[in-house]
Amino acid sequence: MSGNTIGKLFTVTSFGESHGKALGAIVDGCPPGLAITEEDLQVDLDRRKPGTSKFTTQRREGDEVKILSGVFEGKTTGTSIGLLIENTDQRSKDYSKIKDRFRPMHADYTYAHKYGDRDYRGGGRSSARETAMRVAAGAIAKKYLQQQGIEVRGYLSQLGPIKAEKLDWDVVETNPFFCPDADKVPEMETYMNALRKSGDSVGAKITVVATGMPPGLGEPVFDRLDADIAHALMGINAVKGVEIGAGFDCVDAVGSEHRDEITPQGFTSNNAGGVLGGISSGQDIVAHMALKPTSSVLIPGETIDIDGNSTEVITTGRHDPCVGIRATPIAEAMLAITLMDHLLRHRGQNADVQCSTPVIPASAP
Amino acid sequence: MSGNTIGKLFTVTSFGESHGKALGAIVDGCPPGLAITEEDLQVDLDRRKPGTSKFTTQRREGDEVKILSGVFEGKTTGTSIGLLIENTDQRSKDYSKIKDRFRPMHADYTYAHKYGDRDYRGGGRSSARETAMRVAAGAIAKKYLQQQGIEVRGYLSQLGPIKAEKLDWDVVETNPFFCPDADKVPEMETYMNALRKSGDSVGAKITVVATGMPPGLGEPVFDRLDADIAHALMGINAVKGVEIGAGFDCVDAVGSEHRDEITPQGFTSNNAGGVLGGISSGQDIVAHMALKPTSSVLIPGETIDIDGNSTEVITTGRHDPCVGIRATPIAEAMLAITLMDHLLRHRGQNADVQCSTPVIPASAP
Amino acid sequence: MSGNTIGKLFTVTSFGESHGKALGAIVDGCPPGLAITEEDLQVDLDRRKPGTSKFTTQRREGDEVKILSGVFEGKTTGTSIGLLIENTDQRSKDYSKIKDRFRPMHADYTYAHKYGDRDYRGGGRSSARETAMRVAAGAIAKKYLQQQGIEVRGYLSQLGPIKAEKLDWDVVETNPFFCPDADKVPEMETYMNALRKSGDSVGAKITVVATGMPPGLGEPVFDRLDADIAHALMGINAVKGVEIGAGFDCVDAVGSEHRDEITPQGFTSNNAGGVLGGISSGQDIVAHMALKPTSSVLIPGETIDIDGNSTEVITTGRHDPCVGIRATPIAEAMLAITLMDHLLRHRGQNADVQCSTPVIPASAP
Amino acid sequence: MSGNTIGKLFTVTSFGESHGKALGAIVDGCPPGLAITEEDLQVDLDRRKPGTSKFTTQRREGDEVKILSGVFEGKTTGTSIGLLIENTDQRSKDYSKIKDRFRPMHADYTYAHKYGDRDYRGGGRSSARETAMRVAAGAIAKKYLQQQGIEVRGYLSQLGPIKAEKLDWDVVETNPFFCPDADKVPEMETYMNALRKSGDSVGAKITVVATGMPPGLGEPVFDRLDADIAHALMGINAVKGVEIGAGFDCVDAVGSEHRDEITPQGFTSNNAGGVLGGISSGQDIVAHMALKPTSSVLIPGETIDIDGNSTEVITTGRHDPCVGIRATPIAEAMLAITLMDHLLRHRGQNADVQCSTPVIPASAP
Repeated sequence: MSGNTIGKLFTVTSFGESHGKALGAIVDGCPPGLAITEEDLQVDLDRRKPGTSKFTTQRREGDEVKILSGVFEGKTTGTSIGLLIENTDQRSKDYSKIKDRFRPMHADYTYAHKYGDRDYRGGGRSSARETAMRVAAGAIAKKYLQQQGIEVRGYLSQLGPIKAEKLDWDVVETNPFFCPDADKVPEMETYMNALRKSGDSVGAKITVVATGMPPGLGEPVFDRLDADIAHALMGINAVKGVEIGAGFDCVDAVGSEHRDEITPQGFTSNNAGGVLGGISSGQDIVAHMALKPTSSVLIPGETIDIDGNSTEVITTGRHDPCVGIRATPIAEAMLAITLMDHLLRHRGQNADVQCSTPVIPASAP
Repeated sequence: MSGNTIGKLFTVTSFGESHGKALGAIVDGCPPGLAITEEDLQVDLDRRKPGTSKFTTQRREGDEVKILSGVFEGKTTGTSIGLLIENTDQRSKDYSKIKDRFRPMHADYTYAHKYGDRDYRGGGRSSARETAMRVAAGAIAKKYLQQQGIEVRGYLSQLGPIKAEKLDWDVVETNPFFCPDADKVPEMETYMNALRKSGDSVGAKITVVATGMPPGLGEPVFDRLDADIAHALMGINAVKGVEIGAGFDCVDAVGSEHRDEITPQGFTSNNAGGVLGGISSGQDIVAHMALKPTSSVLIPGETIDIDGNSTEVITTGRHDPCVGIRATPIAEAMLAITLMDHLLRHRGQNADVQCSTPVIPASAP
Repeated sequence: MSGNTIGKLFTVTSFGESHGKALGAIVDGCPPGLAITEEDLQVDLDRRKPGTSKFTTQRREGDEVKILSGVFEGKTTGTSIGLLIENTDQRSKDYSKIKDRFRPMHADYTYAHKYGDRDYRGGGRSSARETAMRVAAGAIAKKYLQQQGIEVRGYLSQLGPIKAEKLDWDVVETNPFFCPDADKVPEMETYMNALRKSGDSVGAKITVVATGMPPGLGEPVFDRLDADIAHALMGINAVKGVEIGAGFDCVDAVGSEHRDEITPQGFTSNNAGGVLGGISSGQDIVAHMALKPTSSVLIPGETIDIDGNSTEVITTGRHDPCVGIRATPIAEAMLAITLMDHLLRHRGQNADVQCSTPVIPASAP
Repeated sequence: MSGNTIGKLFTVTSFGESHGKALGAIVDGCPPGLAITEEDLQVDLDRRKPGTSKFTTQRREGDEVKILSGVFEGKTTGTSIGLLIENTDQRSKDYSKIKDRFRPMHADYTYAHKYGDRDYRGGGRSSARETAMRVAAGAIAKKYLQQQGIEVRGYLSQLGPIKAEKLDWDVVETNPFFCPDADKVPEMETYMNALRKSGDSVGAKITVVATGMPPGLGEPVFDRLDADIAHALMGINAVKGVEIGAGFDCVDAVGSEHRDEITPQGFTSNNAGGVLGGISSGQDIVAHMALKPTSSVLIPGETIDIDGNSTEVITTGRHDPCVGIRATPIAEAMLAITLMDHLLRHRGQNADVQCSTPVIPASAP
């Protein structure tokens, strides 16, 4: 399978460049009978949309998604769903400054060597603009999972040096950062204002959570649920690290304290992040991802031109000073797509399975 | 595709349980003409083998691999390669203590709910014993990559609280931990001795590196090279976190400092870990993974039995107090398999590509 | 992988229903640097287009294809190519006659049982309308193959009882049947006129040929080139049989006569149809497919309604009396997609292979 | 995915050469809880085994299969099943006659050009010997399907010029040809005796049937059930044609007669062969395949040597004068594997689907 498809039984295939005519995706394998509308998808697209606060790029994209197939009389038919978003704000621009040089820490150099040449307009296919389609496709998965009792949500757990210390889901959607800690929001605003002035960028950490999980999702030994979640999240632009549950904190932990004990009333902790032996345990899925600071900054950097000569580059134009800010809906989408795929795969193989042991609660009271 | 296969053009499919008759794998897609012997595979198997020091499980497995097909007159034929390791030390054991209860933080509970029942002998398919086949298959990939100038190596970068502070490749194979810092080895020995006495376990961090990389490997947008490395490493037993390059350190980094600048003499740093936009840059691939402490400890833990009633469990028998110690060859194997697959995929699509820009050195002098 | 994708390294994924808003496809894995325009695709779309003669359905579709991504400055970039055709002639129609009953020999009954419900407008996803996207995607493969010296062409070898007895490639595009035998064209016209009057339909046989083949394409043992050609052709609407080379004629042949002998000047015959052991031999690929008569006829037939009660159905409206007539470009497209995929896969695994035996000509003079 | 794997959710991956150490397969995705023993597999292996009558090759292989994993306490666990058959009759032989020349109509020439070199011992991987593993793997699928009420069976419908004219399932296993027409058996014996004396070979036609089918299996639009059956059957050694239902007979049929009408009491005919729009209708699946005469005959044939020079070849040694004779169990296995895969895929996507229309009987009384 080529690289623009994710999933095996529930699949998403996408196309589209930053400054091309349109972005699109085909969602295949969605069960029939799911009520879905363009508005359902638009909700998440609007959460990801640029230009909704001064802390994100000022490119103005309506990101209006059309459902072109696979839905009949308001419900999925079980056949492939075509999605389309037309690019409206392809502002005519002078690309002469980046056309002939490689921006450091961008895909410019690697695309050139992979493909011989590249679409230099705004990064072409390597632009995070393509994640709009992931969000649209993920919204279908999220809705289906919701009807199965599984809720996928995310938040920004750290912006640069500022960590969220409280998790209040009601706060997440009330601020432009998806920060779950109301006390930290003003600090983040101050930080971002200073950052914008300095022309620099910063990294971030996003956490995604799935609640209401059934046990049993995930396929040993290579397509473990956590392995596929890592694949899905590491595949988001700018992500450089993924953790499940305790993640790197487990390196210096000891087993007697780290293990999540089991009681009839529920698991006593969730260091595992909801996955044991690559299979969901019924505990909440908890995954974290680290996003690097974008290298599109106003401070000149050393690079080479397409002939291999030394030169400098500076990124002007519209850019996100922290790409992590808009990444929460993308991470949710990728987690939802992964869970959806595994839900269908699990059913396919294990539709008739009955386990005599009762399912215990996700966490002890 | 079902879950016991990894890769798309170069694939590895495996079978085998901890206490079954044998483990096996089929390596498909290996180019013809590669000189390969059972001894080539045995080298890495012996590096992973249990019982080679007092710090690992005392289970004694010869782990002798046989090549059953796909190699003719000492060279690969291009057809599928069958590999087999017979289990020899299936010590008859009393399983009554774990047969009817779920060990916390193990796959017991999740396998039971996924499949209705489970092979309780030593964890069955969920046992890390299956990783022997990954190492055998990975040795083929490593050898092929080597002939292309790509070297895949790994080391233990942290054992519990003890971090390696120097990277001396010559030291790695001289101690039972794969520690690259000779000064830390005695400290690790002391720590492990104390840990064994306490009956507890501890986590670890492993780093894998590929040098001699060509630019261009990796498929946008979902099968990015880093996404597939994350999938491969997170799919190793006990792994809970994966980082590429700077990983989670990029969260509070700023773009002006974090970006790896480019000069005709080479990249000035490697925070990216060798991957830009999901495609290899020619810099060294650097990935880290966190392994949790195994929950098989001598300290009793709370759990439930298969009827859902509260009970306790204690793990006696032969176990690794730090599963990370033997994980270095496994991580190398998974990285090699992933690179090999992407090398073939890249060639398939881009065999004729010429880029006019010269390939710059992995790092500036 | 879900069912709307074909290919592994060169993939085509499609969506769209007969009476939906649009049809679309994503072509992934196409090598970069291929010059391609919408006009290139339109040529084949126009060959398949309905309404070009009185012998096909009078539905009027412009079938104008748009390339939405993956092509930059006239050349493929190596990233995914988005294609779109808007449905323009979705004539408002009274579906009450077929909405509540299953047309015999159609997908109505099977879609209803697979998905619980169905899009009854013109067959929805089961309509041959979706093959427009195959033709568009196939045109890309055809053009790439052409640049590698491989030509994919097809013709109608039999229409109902009338067999083409001569193969003159120059004749194929000069008549509405893609018939390669000029002498049979008037007979076919007479036959079709009578058929249309009778309100009945008839089957057909299509032959596709690839010339200029290199030896070596095809993957043992399951993804043989002939197996994948069979998959591609049998997956076309209304196809019920596929032959490679001599096909069913080999059942009563004897080996001493049937075998294609090899001389330094070329193969002496081509009963194998260009494939030996699942791998291309360099001879021409020759495949045949049988298309059933559509059951959309004006003669009433027995069926049941959606409640399971006995009823009758008659198909009025715009239909092809012989779906085989427009099937030639579709068959070419499917063969081209399959060859393209195998060309890339072969290169991926065997890029460096040199065989000391010279390649012999496809056929002896 | 590389070429030695078939299926997507239920997969079979195989290895092994004619004269290698062993053949093996990994069956992945089999639901847990299926009672399966080595004896279950041996039944079909013995049906395919060479040397059971004087009409097949006299190579003596025990073909004893071992189950190495995936079965615990007599039942499948849901994890990957390892199968192994050791080659016992690798009679030491003088290969000098075929080592340096290409047998016409064999894979010799194509393997050489694909891989640069080849395993010349008995055809290596291209030998039909590998089909033993298909039969072993298929036996697992057959047993599972049986428990779902689906029976997969096959027979020889034509041997050279001799057609079976009656279908009596009770006769099939009582003669060495799998011929379902007792009256034709003596004729076939006489024919084969004469053929053996002449040193020639002949083709055959095999028919496979699945009864007890549920409607709904198959994935539009590329992975149609019939497309995947065609892929599975055309991928068997020596197969050159595949038909579903009426097959090529539909070319000169008219729609009003050809369509299978539907009544509440059942379908009135089965020209469709049980598949409509690529999805099973509940009618019996009926597929035919044509096998070519093997070119391993005692009559000298023209060919080239590995340097490209003209030479002759004659095949001595142990060969099947009609490879079709032993092909019935192989065809059954491939059909069973395909149905099994689609059964699991269908369940995965459509587990909850309810269709209000009752399922009608496969055929009207």
